[in-house]
Amino acid sequence: MADEARFARLRQAMERERLDALVCRLPEHVLMLSGYWPVCAWVYAVFPREGRGTCLLPDTEEQEARAGLFRTECLTYPFGTKDSPQQADSLLPLLKSVARRWKTVGWEAGCDTCAPAWNTAEMQIPSARTRALLERAFGERKLVDASGLLRAEQVVKTAPEIEGVRRANRIANLGIEEFFRRVAPGTSGVELAAAVEGAIMVQGTGFESARCVRAFAQVAVGPESARGWRPAEVTTARRLEAGEVALLELAVVADGFWCDRTRARVAGEPTSEQCQARDLVAQAQAAAIAAVRPGAGAASVDEAARSVIRGGGRDRQFMHITGHGLGYRYHEYAPLLAPRSADELRTGMIHSVEPGVYGASFGGIRIEDDVLVTESGAEVLAPISAHLGAS
Amino acid sequence: MADEARFARLRQAMERERLDALVCRLPEHVLMLSGYWPVCAWVYAVFPREGRGTCLLPDTEEQEARAGLFRTECLTYPFGTKDSPQQADSLLPLLKSVARRWKTVGWEAGCDTCAPAWNTAEMQIPSARTRALLERAFGERKLVDASGLLRAEQVVKTAPEIEGVRRANRIANLGIEEFFRRVAPGTSGVELAAAVEGAIMVQGTGFESARCVRAFAQVAVGPESARGWRPAEVTTARRLEAGEVALLELAVVADGFWCDRTRARVAGEPTSEQCQARDLVAQAQAAAIAAVRPGAGAASVDEAARSVIRGGGRDRQFMHITGHGLGYRYHEYAPLLAPRSADELRTGMIHSVEPGVYGASFGGIRIEDDVLVTESGAEVLAPISAHLGAS
Repeated sequence: MADEARFARLRQAMERERLDALVCRLPEHVLMLSGYWPVCAWVYAVFPREGRGTCLLPDTEEQEARAGLFRTECLTYPFGTKDSPQQADSLLPLLKSVARRWKTVGWEAGCDTCAPAWNTAEMQIPSARTRALLERAFGERKLVDASGLLRAEQVVKTAPEIEGVRRANRIANLGIEEFFRRVAPGTSGVELAAAVEGAIMVQGTGFESARCVRAFAQVAVGPESARGWRPAEVTTARRLEAGEVALLELAVVADGFWCDRTRARVAGEPTSEQCQARDLVAQAQAAAIAAVRPGAGAASVDEAARSVIRGGGRDRQFMHITGHGLGYRYHEYAPLLAPRSADELRTGMIHSVEPGVYGASFGGIRIEDDVLVTESGAEVLAPISAHLGAS
Repeated sequence: MADEARFARLRQAMERERLDALVCRLPEHVLMLSGYWPVCAWVYAVFPREGRGTCLLPDTEEQEARAGLFRTECLTYPFGTKDSPQQADSLLPLLKSVARRWKTVGWEAGCDTCAPAWNTAEMQIPSARTRALLERAFGERKLVDASGLLRAEQVVKTAPEIEGVRRANRIANLGIEEFFRRVAPGTSGVELAAAVEGAIMVQGTGFESARCVRAFAQVAVGPESARGWRPAEVTTARRLEAGEVALLELAVVADGFWCDRTRARVAGEPTSEQCQARDLVAQAQAAAIAAVRPGAGAASVDEAARSVIRGGGRDRQFMHITGHGLGYRYHEYAPLLAPRSADELRTGMIHSVEPGVYGASFGGIRIEDDVLVTESGAEVLAPISAHLGAS
């Protein structure tokens, strides 16, 4: 199986930019070009404008690559034993063997944000050494920075890619439900984060045939949640007190496709101020989602959410953007749903819608869902309760 | 507080290579140059050969940076709100403000393997865009690839760095103990991995003041463990049957310092072949550790382990290397403990010692500990039981 729509679009883009081939090693690009999401990221995808693509991978990863994910040729190199040659020495002849009379070869020179492979403890990145290897394989002066093309190609998803993000969202809900069950006075931020990540790994692996699943949860509790709009908020061992908010920021990846979700929950009984803030955020989210359609300005969707919160007198408590593209990464560059964004929504884009308000008197309340832009409007991927309590 | 021994060594290396400053963004280098391990990796460390270093970081991360980890000046830039400028636009004037009359500025051009920041769901990497920013800040033709210097400097650890890796190993033991408690017939690989990762996040956060703690577990069960020497082994939902091996491969990071550990455990009663294989591996590990001392060839330490396993008739079942450097990453380049390694051990190096044997009839049994090379031999960091069962 191959994602023919994706391949056709890529070939058109390569023709526009006069690229004869793409050679990529970042996991998100290997996935887009070959259908295979690497386990450890020692994988290269070679995608020519004409002819079939090839994936170069360590023999230790061949079994994973063959297991249903692969849509392309693959060549393996010896890896992981005491006798395995240096990776570059193995890759050079393989790269040469797939080379054709290419005048220009696109690579990932300008990629500065990237998603990890399944094994997130270590990353392999395109560096000057990668460049030197590709120059030796394909000839000097042929390499062209294709990061702009790759970034642009990620923005609009194809049907299989949409299904990948949809499934990641369904798997995220397994963790969100665990979060709902666990929020209670006395529970700590790290306990909640570990419970969410564990539920997703245990219940998500094998869910709708997903093979490689991981979650990354940040949980801010009590006063931390009032700062919970900051991406740098670290999960701590602080324990929830009755009436405090737990704010879950959640990234989930399933076979290479990412989602980005947020829920807030109160330990015990929410106060009326918390309920009022939650209702305002929920209305803002609904207004933004109602404004999503092909051709809509991303700034107008942001304004749809922001005007609701302004109407509630809390606009200074909503200091962040309304949303961003995602799917091949936890965050993609476009569309950007923010006040001065020039982006325009198009069918097949996936983006978050994540208004929130943050205040010392009640905590931080954000509701984040991922939305697909459809021909008729918006599809919320895997909707789930956004109430502050079980009631 | 600062790691003066580290700074003095860095300045000597910079003088040798005629570098006036280092400017780094990879988390492991920011940690080495500033003492701060970034949460989200939008941080730059500027380390001049003369004068104090500076850390440039988003204001959203300032609180984390100030919390005891920081040993250097810091400058913040606005981040994370709807009104924050583009990161490069904020960083350029800050980089210019710290620039002195430097002729050469080292950056991370050639780094192709790197460790993530605490938030491992997304990586910021040095790319052509980073290069363009640094060229605008410091002037063209001044940038030099410092990846060789940085890599060489990681190899021998200073006292605070050793303590960081030692603590990571102690925290890893919290997960290993959880693994020992949980291995039983009916338990799945993902259940074990999630339990280990959860125990480390919950019990490790705050352990000896560690703030940012994460674990990455790969658990191979039953026949999977016979392939468990492969770094690409994916944890599955397969459940242990009585008498099968569970093999835990474990990376732990605590405030930026990494460890790498492995334990095998049998669900129920081990067979005599499993016990014999385990004893052989334990003897091989002990022989290798006994051979560790300053001046010893890394190949001779490998041979010390390998000859024991050869003596047991299982040398073809020990197909991988005996160990590798670690600490700033899960795996570092040196020392490499392998048959043809030219590396020589030096006081202050930290490396794994991880012999293992793998066979269809019994599974995979590897014992991995991290070892510090001391003046008198080796210190095993945070030793813990390596038995196959509770008995």
